[in-house]
Amino acid sequence: MAIVGASRTPRKIGYELLRILVENSQMGIYKGKLYAVNPKSNEMILGVPTYKSILELPDAPDLAILVTPAKYTPSAMEDCGKRGIKNVIVISGGFAEVGGEGVELQRELEALRDRYEMRVIGPNCVGVVVPSTGVDTMFLPVEKEFLDKKYISSPRPKPGNISLSTQSGAFGVACLDYMHGEGIGLAKFISYGNKLDVDEVDVLEYLRRDEETKVILIYAESIDRGREFLKLAREITKEKPIVIFKAGRTSAGARAANSHTAAMAGSDNVYDAAFKQAGVIRVRDMEELFDVAKALVMQPPARGNRIAILTDGGGVGVMAADETEALGLKLANLSEESQNIFQNLKEKRIIPPIAATIDPIDLTGSATDDSFVETMRILLEDDNVDGIMILALHHVPGVTTNLPNRLAGLSKSYDKPVVAMDVGSSQYAKAFREMFEAEGIPAYPESERAARAMKALVSYGKIKNSPR
Amino acid sequence: MAIVGASRTPRKIGYELLRILVENSQMGIYKGKLYAVNPKSNEMILGVPTYKSILELPDAPDLAILVTPAKYTPSAMEDCGKRGIKNVIVISGGFAEVGGEGVELQRELEALRDRYEMRVIGPNCVGVVVPSTGVDTMFLPVEKEFLDKKYISSPRPKPGNISLSTQSGAFGVACLDYMHGEGIGLAKFISYGNKLDVDEVDVLEYLRRDEETKVILIYAESIDRGREFLKLAREITKEKPIVIFKAGRTSAGARAANSHTAAMAGSDNVYDAAFKQAGVIRVRDMEELFDVAKALVMQPPARGNRIAILTDGGGVGVMAADETEALGLKLANLSEESQNIFQNLKEKRIIPPIAATIDPIDLTGSATDDSFVETMRILLEDDNVDGIMILALHHVPGVTTNLPNRLAGLSKSYDKPVVAMDVGSSQYAKAFREMFEAEGIPAYPESERAARAMKALVSYGKIKNSPR
Repeated sequence: MAIVGASRTPRKIGYELLRILVENSQMGIYKGKLYAVNPKSNEMILGVPTYKSILELPDAPDLAILVTPAKYTPSAMEDCGKRGIKNVIVISGGFAEVGGEGVELQRELEALRDRYEMRVIGPNCVGVVVPSTGVDTMFLPVEKEFLDKKYISSPRPKPGNISLSTQSGAFGVACLDYMHGEGIGLAKFISYGNKLDVDEVDVLEYLRRDEETKVILIYAESIDRGREFLKLAREITKEKPIVIFKAGRTSAGARAANSHTAAMAGSDNVYDAAFKQAGVIRVRDMEELFDVAKALVMQPPARGNRIAILTDGGGVGVMAADETEALGLKLANLSEESQNIFQNLKEKRIIPPIAATIDPIDLTGSATDDSFVETMRILLEDDNVDGIMILALHHVPGVTTNLPNRLAGLSKSYDKPVVAMDVGSSQYAKAFREMFEAEGIPAYPESERAARAMKALVSYGKIKNSPR
Repeated sequence: MAIVGASRTPRKIGYELLRILVENSQMGIYKGKLYAVNPKSNEMILGVPTYKSILELPDAPDLAILVTPAKYTPSAMEDCGKRGIKNVIVISGGFAEVGGEGVELQRELEALRDRYEMRVIGPNCVGVVVPSTGVDTMFLPVEKEFLDKKYISSPRPKPGNISLSTQSGAFGVACLDYMHGEGIGLAKFISYGNKLDVDEVDVLEYLRRDEETKVILIYAESIDRGREFLKLAREITKEKPIVIFKAGRTSAGARAANSHTAAMAGSDNVYDAAFKQAGVIRVRDMEELFDVAKALVMQPPARGNRIAILTDGGGVGVMAADETEALGLKLANLSEESQNIFQNLKEKRIIPPIAATIDPIDLTGSATDDSFVETMRILLEDDNVDGIMILALHHVPGVTTNLPNRLAGLSKSYDKPVVAMDVGSSQYAKAFREMFEAEGIPAYPESERAARAMKALVSYGKIKNSPR
C-alpha cells in the first residue's frame, strides 16, 4: 500500500493513518509492504520508505490511500493512474458534499477513474478496516489523549465473520467501538462516503464472495441503484443473511438524511416491502443490528416459529412471552411425552416440583444446573419446539458458571437455534454472558432483546427455505 | 431488627441475610441494633446477640424479619404479636404460591396479622433494600463463589432518588444488579411477594410521602386494587412521576403471568388507557424503565414537544430525528435570530462553515468543544426549543472530555431538559457518558434511547401541568 499525503506531524490524518498501519505491520498482522508519499521530503516517516511523488515508487502498489487536501487530490489520482495503480481509497473530504468547487473536483476524479480504469472508494470516507489482514484506513487513533490522560477511544473489533457496510463514516466508527466492547468479531468494514465509484451494490457483490463474511450488515440512508441492489440481495440472502438498518424512516428523519448525505430517502413503506421481498432483514436501531447479527453468525436458522422459553425467573419469562407473541412467534405446545418426562423429573426432584412446565417453563429460584440441563434435553428432543430461549438469571443460588458450557455442549448435537439471556451489569452477569458466547450461544442482557434475536433466526429460516 | 430463623450455616438464607446486615452495621451504614433468633442455641451468631425465642428479646424491635420454614412461620408470627412487634417481613416461601397446605398457612398468617394489628410484607418475597440506611433483607450475597473463584453477583446500587416496587422478586434482584452497573442510585426497593398485607397501593402511599423518593418505578404483572391504585396514582403524579413496566401485555404474556404470580392480567388496552388517565408513564422493557427514570430524576420536565438535536455525527442525527417523530415529538423550528447567530458563528469559524443548522443541527466531524457550547447557548435561548438532545460522538478529533462539564454548566441556568448520547463501549465512551451524568445530564449509548428519555420528559411536563 502507498499512503499518499503521509505526514510527519502527530494528530494529522496523514500521520495517524500511517501510524496505525505501521503498528499493524510491526505486530505482524499487516504483512504487505508500505510506502509513504510526501512531496516535501523523502526522509523516512515512522520507518516507512518515503517518496516525493507517486511516480517515483519503486513498484506499483495494489492500493493507494489518498489523504491529500481536496485540491491536490486530482493530480495525485492522475499520478496513481500513470504509475499503474488500479485501486484507490480517497479519504479526503471537500468534494461533492461541500458543493460548489467540491463538485467540480469530484468530477475530475471521476474522469480520471474512467481514463485509468481504476476502482475508487470515497472520497469523504473512513475507508476500510480488516482486522484479519491489518488493512485499516480508519484514521482515528485507538487512544485519545486529554489533559495528560489517555483513553481508549476508537478501538478495533477482533477478527470475526460479520461485515459492515456503512454510508455514514462517523456512525461506522461508533459501530466499531460498540462491536469491540461487545466482543463481536469483524470481517470487513467499508465506509464508502460520496460513492464516486464503489457503492452499496459493489460492496454487496464483494461481500457475497468473501468467505470470511457470514453475515452482511448495512447502514444506509438511501440506496441509489435500488433495483440492482434488490436483485442481488435476493440472490445473496439464499446464501448468507443481510441485515439492514435503513435510517430516514420518518419524514423528519428523511429530511435529516437529505441534509446529511444528500440522500433521497423515499417512501419508507416501499423500502419495507422491497426488503421483505428480497429477504433482507430490517432492524430499527444499532442495538438490534448487532443483536441480530450475533444470533445469525452463531446459530442455525429456525425451521419454524414455535419457541420454548426456559427460565429460573418468572418475571423475565413473562417479558419474553410478551415479546415473542408481539413479534409474531408462538410459544411451543410441548408434546405429551415431554410432559411425562417433566413429571418423572419432578418426582425424582431433579427439577423443582413447583416448576411450571407449560411454555414458558419456569424452574423458579430453586433451579439448579441439572434442572436446566435436563429440561434443555427435553426441549431439544421435542419436535414441537423450533427454537429455545434460555433466560438464566445467575442470581439464583443453584445456578453456577458451569451452566453455559453444559447447555452449549448439549445443544451442539441438535440443529435448533438457542439464544441466552441474563440480566445485570455485575461481574457475574458479564462473565456468564461471555461464557455462553464463548460456547457459541449468543447472550443478551434483556428478555426482549433475546426474543428479537430469535425472531431473526426464524425469519432467516423462512428466507432460506422459500422458493425464490 | 430481629432476624428470626437466623442460621450458623453459611449459604443458608438465615445466615446470608444476617451477614449482610452485620456488614452494613460494621460499615456504619446500618445504625440500629440487631437481634438474632434461633431456637437451638443462644450462642451469638456473627457477633449478634441471639435468643431462643422471640419472647425472650430484651426489647420489642421495630421490625422482625422471618426466614423460618413455612410451617413454623405462623407460630413465629404469633410470638411477634405477643412481643409487641408491629412490622414483619416474611421472606419464607411455601405459602399461597404452592397451593394446598400453603394456602392454609397463609390464612393463618392473615388471621395473626389481624389479631395483633401488624403490617406484613410478603410472604415469598425478597423484602426491602434501602442503601441509605443499610436495611437490606435481600438474602443474595453480593459475591457468589464457584470453583475457587469469586464473582460480584448481586451488587447493591448506591443511595439515590429512584424507588422500585416489584411484584417479581427475581426480576427485582436483577434490576438492582443492573442499576448498580449503570450507576443509578436507589432510594427504596420493595418486593412484596404474595401481598398478604402490603400491596402496590400501600407501597405507593409510602413512596409518595418518602422524601428520598423522587421517581417511583413499578414492575407489575397485575394490579389487584385497580381503582384505588389509579386514584392514588393520579394524585401522586402531580408531585412525582410514576413509571410502570406492566408485563403480560399479550395473551401469551398474560398466560405466563397467571402461572407466575396467579396474576389476572386483564385487557392490556384497558391498562393502557387507565395508566394514561392517571398520568402514569408506561414503558415496554427494563432498559426503558431505567432510561426514563434516569431522565426524570436528573432533568426538569419539558414545557412542550419541540426538540432540538445537536450532533457531530450526521447518521446518529438522522436516527434521533426518526425516533423523535415516531414518538410524536417535533423537531424544533429555530428562530430567525438563532439562524443569524449561526451565520455569524460560521463566519467567525467558531462553528464549521459546513455545519447544518436546521434541526437536527450537525456540526460534522469538524466539531469542537467551542462549537458545541456556542450552539448549545443558541438552543437554550431559543423559545422555539423545549428540550435538547446532545448527540456528541467522542471519536471526533476536536471533542474533548471538557465538553460534558461545559455543556452542563451552561444548561444549569436554564429550565430546559437536556439529555446526552455517545455511541460505543470503549473506555472513552463510558467515561464521557459518566461525565455527563456526574453533571446531572443523563447519557445514553443510542440515539433512540436518548429520544425515548426525552419523550418521558415531555410526557411528564404535560402530566404535571394538566388540570386534574
